Amino acid sequence: MSKYHETAEEVSQATEGYVLQQTMLRIKDPKVSVDFYQNVLGMTLLGKYDFPTMKFSLYFLGYEQEIPEGDDKTKTEWVFKRPALIELTHNWGSENDENFPGYHNGNEDPRGFGHIGISVPDVYAACERFAKYDVEFVKKPDDGSMKGLAFIKDPDGYWIEVLSAEGITEIILSQ
Amino acid sequence: MSKYHETAEEVSQATEGYVLQQTMLRIKDPKVSVDFYQNVLGMTLLGKYDFPTMKFSLYFLGYEQEIPEGDDKTKTEWVFKRPALIELTHNWGSENDENFPGYHNGNEDPRGFGHIGISVPDVYAACERFAKYDVEFVKKPDDGSMKGLAFIKDPDGYWIEVLSAEGITEIILSQ
Repeated sequence: MSKYHETAEEVSQATEGYVLQQTMLRIKDPKVSVDFYQNVLGMTLLGKYDFPTMKFSLYFLGYEQEIPEGDDKTKTEWVFKRPALIELTHNWGSENDENFPGYHNGNEDPRGFGHIGISVPDVYAACERFAKYDVEFVKKPDDGSMKGLAFIKDPDGYWIEVLSAEGITEIILSQ
Repeated sequence: MSKYHETAEEVSQATEGYVLQQTMLRIKDPKVSVDFYQNVLGMTLLGKYDFPTMKFSLYFLGYEQEIPEGDDKTKTEWVFKRPALIELTHNWGSENDENFPGYHNGNEDPRGFGHIGISVPDVYAACERFAKYDVEFVKKPDDGSMKGLAFIKDPDGYWIEVLSAEGITEIILSQ
């Protein structure tokens, strides 16, 4: 029983065109993090936006094959209609601050956000490549009881689940 | 200069088929949160998976119009290939625990995760409807200098940015 007062059809009409566009994570150093998301995870940098008066920059990355031609307005509007992007927020200066405490990944107290997750064709092949690049593992694919499912850490320590649709389905259906 | 050693083409081949499938948030009470994501934000509940021995359940929601016909295996594999889903993790018992401290939204110390964000056709219309349902606002569309951009809270206090592609593009290009 919903506490709200619309029929499913009314909800659907009222929210037509909604897109889950972004997940925002704060990062210490864009040179390190953008390199990781681009060259380890294979995402494309779709836009970088600077806010000089507030001293931060935003980097949007996602699994898009092609960025359309056009002026800044056309391109930026396109980015903000894409689903499933990572927004990396860099507050200027953290990359050179020796006393910067680092960001909190949400998996120790106080807990909250857990991870992002990428679906890949072959978890073992993906993890072999990640290991080659000394990516830190929280769980290797064969650790624990959930075989074929891994967790790695990004440069700030955020967890990234590495799953395959077939593998995780097998785990779920065996519960 | 990347610290990794693949060409752009090698990265692209090695990560072919990767999908940013999920963002995981822990929730106190699925009755409250699933109702919010379904009936306020207009997402569809694509799958609920129980892990009785570990005493947790997962709820996957997203802006998908139709769930394909098929057996559990077919449907579950389909879910785990979808981009842009929210995974709500419910550790059993929190919903009835009077001493449950609540989850941390990442926007006070220790900071890390910031928010998820939905792109909508009309931020003002969306926010008018959210206000009708007493959704808590962090920032109403006309608060502060960034007009036409809002932040609301989900039932656990996680921030959700409400943006339109046109509106945020105007903000970005005026920096």
